[in-house]
Amino acid sequence: MTRESAGGAGEDGISVVYDLDADCTADDIEEERFYLAEINGVVDYGVFVDLSDSISGLVHESVLDGTYRVGDELVVSLEAVRDNGDLAFVPAEISDDYDLEPIGHEYSLTGTDRLEASVGEQIHLEGEVVQIKQTGGPTIFHVTDEYGVVPCAAFEEAGVRAYPATEVGDVVRITGVPERREGSIQLEVDGLSTLEGDDEAEACERIEHSLEERAEPHTVEPLIDWPAFEALRPDLEAVAKKLRRTVLEGRPIRIRHHADGDGMCAAVPVQMALERFIEEVHEADDASRHLIKRLPAKAPYYEMEDATRDLNYALEDRERHGHQLPLLLMLDNGSTAEDVPAYETLAHYDIPIVAIDHHHPDPDAVEDSLAAHVNPYLHGEDYRITTGMCCVELARMIDPAFGEQLRHVPAVAGLADRSKADAMARYVELASEAGYDEDRLGDVSEALDYAAHWLRYNSGDRLIRDLLGLGNGEDPHDELVDFFSERAREDVEEQLEAAEPHVEHESLANDAHLYRLDVENHAHRFTYPAPGKTTGELHDRKIEATGDPVITVGYGPDFAVLRSDGVRLDIPNMVSELAEEVEGAGVSGGGHLVVGSIKFVKGKREAVIDALVEKMAAAEIDDELSAAGAIDD
Amino acid sequence: MTRESAGGAGEDGISVVYDLDADCTADDIEEERFYLAEINGVVDYGVFVDLSDSISGLVHESVLDGTYRVGDELVVSLEAVRDNGDLAFVPAEISDDYDLEPIGHEYSLTGTDRLEASVGEQIHLEGEVVQIKQTGGPTIFHVTDEYGVVPCAAFEEAGVRAYPATEVGDVVRITGVPERREGSIQLEVDGLSTLEGDDEAEACERIEHSLEERAEPHTVEPLIDWPAFEALRPDLEAVAKKLRRTVLEGRPIRIRHHADGDGMCAAVPVQMALERFIEEVHEADDASRHLIKRLPAKAPYYEMEDATRDLNYALEDRERHGHQLPLLLMLDNGSTAEDVPAYETLAHYDIPIVAIDHHHPDPDAVEDSLAAHVNPYLHGEDYRITTGMCCVELARMIDPAFGEQLRHVPAVAGLADRSKADAMARYVELASEAGYDEDRLGDVSEALDYAAHWLRYNSGDRLIRDLLGLGNGEDPHDELVDFFSERAREDVEEQLEAAEPHVEHESLANDAHLYRLDVENHAHRFTYPAPGKTTGELHDRKIEATGDPVITVGYGPDFAVLRSDGVRLDIPNMVSELAEEVEGAGVSGGGHLVVGSIKFVKGKREAVIDALVEKMAAAEIDDELSAAGAIDD
Amino acid sequence: MTRESAGGAGEDGISVVYDLDADCTADDIEEERFYLAEINGVVDYGVFVDLSDSISGLVHESVLDGTYRVGDELVVSLEAVRDNGDLAFVPAEISDDYDLEPIGHEYSLTGTDRLEASVGEQIHLEGEVVQIKQTGGPTIFHVTDEYGVVPCAAFEEAGVRAYPATEVGDVVRITGVPERREGSIQLEVDGLSTLEGDDEAEACERIEHSLEERAEPHTVEPLIDWPAFEALRPDLEAVAKKLRRTVLEGRPIRIRHHADGDGMCAAVPVQMALERFIEEVHEADDASRHLIKRLPAKAPYYEMEDATRDLNYALEDRERHGHQLPLLLMLDNGSTAEDVPAYETLAHYDIPIVAIDHHHPDPDAVEDSLAAHVNPYLHGEDYRITTGMCCVELARMIDPAFGEQLRHVPAVAGLADRSKADAMARYVELASEAGYDEDRLGDVSEALDYAAHWLRYNSGDRLIRDLLGLGNGEDPHDELVDFFSERAREDVEEQLEAAEPHVEHESLANDAHLYRLDVENHAHRFTYPAPGKTTGELHDRKIEATGDPVITVGYGPDFAVLRSDGVRLDIPNMVSELAEEVEGAGVSGGGHLVVGSIKFVKGKREAVIDALVEKMAAAEIDDELSAAGAIDD
Repeated sequence: MTRESAGGAGEDGISVVYDLDADCTADDIEEERFYLAEINGVVDYGVFVDLSDSISGLVHESVLDGTYRVGDELVVSLEAVRDNGDLAFVPAEISDDYDLEPIGHEYSLTGTDRLEASVGEQIHLEGEVVQIKQTGGPTIFHVTDEYGVVPCAAFEEAGVRAYPATEVGDVVRITGVPERREGSIQLEVDGLSTLEGDDEAEACERIEHSLEERAEPHTVEPLIDWPAFEALRPDLEAVAKKLRRTVLEGRPIRIRHHADGDGMCAAVPVQMALERFIEEVHEADDASRHLIKRLPAKAPYYEMEDATRDLNYALEDRERHGHQLPLLLMLDNGSTAEDVPAYETLAHYDIPIVAIDHHHPDPDAVEDSLAAHVNPYLHGEDYRITTGMCCVELARMIDPAFGEQLRHVPAVAGLADRSKADAMARYVELASEAGYDEDRLGDVSEALDYAAHWLRYNSGDRLIRDLLGLGNGEDPHDELVDFFSERAREDVEEQLEAAEPHVEHESLANDAHLYRLDVENHAHRFTYPAPGKTTGELHDRKIEATGDPVITVGYGPDFAVLRSDGVRLDIPNMVSELAEEVEGAGVSGGGHLVVGSIKFVKGKREAVIDALVEKMAAAEIDDELSAAGAIDD
Repeated sequence: MTRESAGGAGEDGISVVYDLDADCTADDIEEERFYLAEINGVVDYGVFVDLSDSISGLVHESVLDGTYRVGDELVVSLEAVRDNGDLAFVPAEISDDYDLEPIGHEYSLTGTDRLEASVGEQIHLEGEVVQIKQTGGPTIFHVTDEYGVVPCAAFEEAGVRAYPATEVGDVVRITGVPERREGSIQLEVDGLSTLEGDDEAEACERIEHSLEERAEPHTVEPLIDWPAFEALRPDLEAVAKKLRRTVLEGRPIRIRHHADGDGMCAAVPVQMALERFIEEVHEADDASRHLIKRLPAKAPYYEMEDATRDLNYALEDRERHGHQLPLLLMLDNGSTAEDVPAYETLAHYDIPIVAIDHHHPDPDAVEDSLAAHVNPYLHGEDYRITTGMCCVELARMIDPAFGEQLRHVPAVAGLADRSKADAMARYVELASEAGYDEDRLGDVSEALDYAAHWLRYNSGDRLIRDLLGLGNGEDPHDELVDFFSERAREDVEEQLEAAEPHVEHESLANDAHLYRLDVENHAHRFTYPAPGKTTGELHDRKIEATGDPVITVGYGPDFAVLRSDGVRLDIPNMVSELAEEVEGAGVSGGGHLVVGSIKFVKGKREAVIDALVEKMAAAEIDDELSAAGAIDD
Repeated sequence: MTRESAGGAGEDGISVVYDLDADCTADDIEEERFYLAEINGVVDYGVFVDLSDSISGLVHESVLDGTYRVGDELVVSLEAVRDNGDLAFVPAEISDDYDLEPIGHEYSLTGTDRLEASVGEQIHLEGEVVQIKQTGGPTIFHVTDEYGVVPCAAFEEAGVRAYPATEVGDVVRITGVPERREGSIQLEVDGLSTLEGDDEAEACERIEHSLEERAEPHTVEPLIDWPAFEALRPDLEAVAKKLRRTVLEGRPIRIRHHADGDGMCAAVPVQMALERFIEEVHEADDASRHLIKRLPAKAPYYEMEDATRDLNYALEDRERHGHQLPLLLMLDNGSTAEDVPAYETLAHYDIPIVAIDHHHPDPDAVEDSLAAHVNPYLHGEDYRITTGMCCVELARMIDPAFGEQLRHVPAVAGLADRSKADAMARYVELASEAGYDEDRLGDVSEALDYAAHWLRYNSGDRLIRDLLGLGNGEDPHDELVDFFSERAREDVEEQLEAAEPHVEHESLANDAHLYRLDVENHAHRFTYPAPGKTTGELHDRKIEATGDPVITVGYGPDFAVLRSDGVRLDIPNMVSELAEEVEGAGVSGGGHLVVGSIKFVKGKREAVIDALVEKMAAAEIDDELSAAGAIDD
């Protein structure tokens, strides 16, 4: 047998023979290399060999010697590519003693950023599976690569899970054709394999690196120069990164926020910035509708009822739509021990919780539950840095382009919570540049509070955006703010007019004024303003009328709301003492030095309030303390 | 150069040369006219000229003289149309001094009434845009012409707004192909242009004229001959026209109505008539589901909470589905000052409000808010003309074909509100012709009230239609009415049995009987009948037992319900006086001469009720006055 | 004319001539038989005859004699089938005196079990129509045959009802092509005819026979050997059959169940077993989502409010989706007179009601309303056989494959309702085999109760399945149970700590201890545990502390909850007496010997409770009686 010279391996030393993976194509073979082939047909004029699933060719009988059977291995090299594309091989002229080296298909990957240009053509994609939704037809894998998230539809059989071994978190290589489907790009999957070993490690690293990089928040100049705030900035940057990363990973986000002015100034900008980022990242057109939800909460803490429902919703969402469990973002709520039972309800699920709050925190109590916790008190600052102020900066870190519209929002947030921060003046000035003078900011704040009251558990997205001046520009922002704020003030006026004659005054031993109001019997119920706000407004008026120190108590059948200016009440401590001292009263509650609320059983109201007043009379006077910024619950 | 004679312009005077619009077709050219053409090709045997995008043809070299270059202008006239459709032109024999006159394509418009016959063929349509919905795929323009509303799908890019300059209200010309899509006709848009100038004015006028004409309500004979009612008829006709026009313009309608018997006798027929009209007007199959909603309200006025939510819903509906903001139709509610805060919430949006009510109105208070206001008191009539009676006539004006089924409804409405109208006898007679004797009418009325109670905020469409005898004929109307009315009566009986022993009686100075019931302590709570109805039923029994004049007061912790027969209470006046006289009681409320309700703070109940009774004792006796028809709130 | 011998009928006697139905095909004709044909063409070389719509052929002139005209009848027999498929006939050699016998097309029916294999090919199907849904496009007939239910789409015109004469319940023959549509098999209808006469009877019998057979529940070995339970087994088998039959007939099922531990141990397994069966029976992919719904109820009976809404929902579901009205399955609720008003609301509709309950029943009161009623008291047993125990066996009868997962559930149910059944020990042992020790079972029971409290009217499917250990295995069942059960116990502890000091004790004349607690004034409201559970827990502690006989009364403003161990209260009887004796108190209520609740009007509380205590003091001591298993309402 005469062997023509072929193959690039030298004749000295040990030759290398390449063993092609099944998915290799003609592009993967080079001339003058040896390949391991398998005979799949024997004919008069030669044998047909397979080098991979798609590489086959003829070895002509003229270059063959001996007998061959189907199934035999043969080392070959490429002789020629015929005009019609057929391949011709020749047997390799090498000894049996060679090194076999596997070769994978050299994939030319197409990133999710280039799908639009490849519609209709087969491409390859590598990425991490972030959601698997089984439809009645195909299985939809949502896959993120270094550029974005794309839905990939794989059809096994109607309603039957395709690639059942593949799970969320796997790194996969997908071959498929991008198609437009209901307005979004979707990849129709021809093949999917889970990467392993080096391939996986390499893809993982590439994706991880990219996610980290893309998660990086934008560096933005603070809206105003405020040294006290700077301490919180790194915390907020970390949260911005976490939220961006969450979006990049296709995990849903649920925002639970306090349903008052500051809470909405916090939640709405973050929601809008995240929506914009989701739209940027996700190919699926309706992604932002599925991936972010804002839920107002009336209570000043995360209630068991809400947590139970949030959890069930998340589990059903996973079951029905294959979503990951969500990240929970608590805004203007979430820093206190009262949140812990709800947190623990979620604790055993993969539901990270992030809280940004400016209420007096119980950091030790919540520490174990929170993946991140931002609160001015953790940096020696206090409620005066409101959640809204924090979240406007957060929204700007997430999407600076959106930030420009937010210049008036920190001032609204500050006024809503009666922040006495030094920086308020600068925020107000900034707002005035955006066309909001101080009166107007107050109006917006009142209007928000009023709308939140009537919307109850409805997030009221359009209405609130309009009130906040973040609407689409078509809406009568000004008139609506006028009307709502005016109504709010009238209703407060009316409520206080009914209440005032029934307010009981006494001077305590420590010279503080104590004002008491039975809000059940001497205020309208189930209307605006609710008991907490009624008490707060009364308190403000009394401070104005009589000056510090002032304590105001609004009590109902089984609760009391407390406000103090100038007296250190230390309410958590009072609650502990009352719980012990007043037997059978079931006293519980929360708050901080000068603001709080207490619950008890109806039948022990008198005993509890008497004991409470006694403690107040003994409390220390401290001019620095103010109830402003209280949650009006 | 020899020019053959061509062109119809005389050689004396100045010739006219026509400049065809780009969209002109061969149909637009006539022989013996001159047209401005542009050379787009030069060949051996002549030059090719374009007269418009789709009109091209050859000018043969034999008729040409000189040199021509592509891009040159040439005035030509039509020589011949070849068998194969090719056009041959000859140069026009005119001087350079001609008048150039533009010619538009003579569109042969196809009305939305003829789309079915044109499925698959390109047509032209002119109309006004009434809704623009951006889907993930195409943009859907809903367009009304003189005949109806059709959805037109224009695709720019997936999820990208097509024709972004086009807005709701624009008059447009659309070229496209009608196709069946999910069971409705939809126009697939090939081209869309906004009309301007004369074209717009002409189309506008044509459409406006047609809308006006089609909005015109049907002229129907009144169900009964009732002179008192005639005063209201023109008002109702105006409302019928307004509602029909609203449907024609594609604007949604939200019906808010009092959730009692009369309220449902009013709202259901109007809803059904409008649904039928919507189906007639709109090509889209699901239009009536999107364009009309009926929402029952428990309170005797439009609550802030409802208004806030309605507004947010409307704004979201506009954002998400491109709907216009709705028209709000208030039925059996809406005439009083208590509605004004809610109205003002909507006032700065394009949300017209129409009220049809038969409760004592505050016309001055509501005037500014209402686009139309129908109320018998505005014509010197009173509650005896119930809203249901009005709305049956209204439904008949909207759709007379439907009216035939409604003959028993006015009697039900009248009995529900215990109308003492003279016309009741004739309504009852009319109902008996439809198979409802008086007992049966009472049953239906009770059953409606009972069902409304348990349905609460649910409109319960199917159930209520069945009870009203407006169902699909399959349902056990009779048995259901039997059962519900019987249960209603039993529950009233049981409630009054518990209450009766606790009713306090006294004879007032003006010789009126005063009956007082503590409905909080001596009636079952949270069940049927509610406090208002309990008080009303008690009142009716007391009148029967002791005869006029009778006042009945049902009071709870912070409210009182008042009914009088034979004593002129003038409740709005009493409320004003009490608000002033009883300090810190937060008195508010509403009503009219003999029916009303008062709210106050819980702690001042005794003081308020004592003062109230004092006023009652001093009130004037008037045999004519009756509490029948009160809202049992 | 020479006639060849043809036709299988003998020449003696009367010949039979077959008259083929229009839909007969060549497969329906046999050689040597006579067929009635009609001439549809006369040509030189013979006449063409039609035997049916699709059977035509030539009678050659060589075998013909005489003149023929189009339209003439001719009796023929088959001569030959040509190679090209053409048929040749010869005139029949018979006298005019023959018997004409109609022949239908011999349909080769394809069952719904073989549709997958016939995708794309025309088939025939016979079955009963179980749902007719008019879409905007085609009309969808859901049809059941002997094997399953398949949606069949018939298109008349967009949104127009196809085959309008066909109704639910009709037996039809459908010719059509199975196609995959959104992941399910759907039959695209080419033709549909309603069967009549023998055809109908035969198909009906075949389907009925199959439905009966397939409805037959599985015979399962009881989980434990428990003679007392055996009495209920036939009842449960009958219910299993009824439910399976309901699924086979495509009727929806709504489960209303008591929202406590036992109620959920009953409802969840049945729901899951039915879901599995629905998936087996129905081709439509989303059938189980439409056909079964689980709805928890807080009240210990079926409330009017729920019934009214359920009915309206069912009517709308019928109108909108063409569903049959549902079967209502009451679990751990439904046996008492208090359910009757709600039942009667549904009574005049085709809504069968089945109740499985272990509360003291009023069999006479509910008998007329229930299609089936399972209750241990009906067999001389009592509450100790809990509904959960019954329903686990029921679920196993419906789907035994699922049953294996349920081994721990009866023990959870038993502990939840504090069942003192002898069989509890064996159930606990069975559970321990499944990995649940007794403490763990108690934890699950408490956790269920706690979750149910916070979920309120939400069925919380995922969460409850996870707590019950019936989740998908991914979820942190253990941790969740730990946490919820611990929280539940802490909250009970806290509640009782507040309450204990206010519990009033007295020794009754019959030596029973009476404990009274004002749950309105001395327990936290609107939290866990609610008044019923609070009273129950208190009762248990008192029994432990003081031993039998013990009565505990928890009272609020207008209700009282009663528990007794060792005293025969006979609460229904007490309620009747009190209703009569205490005038104007509106006393009502329900319960049985040792457990119950009473309602009254607020203002008569003292009188009612005094009279109640008097009766208790006179009640008979009976050591056998225990309040365990009470509904904690």
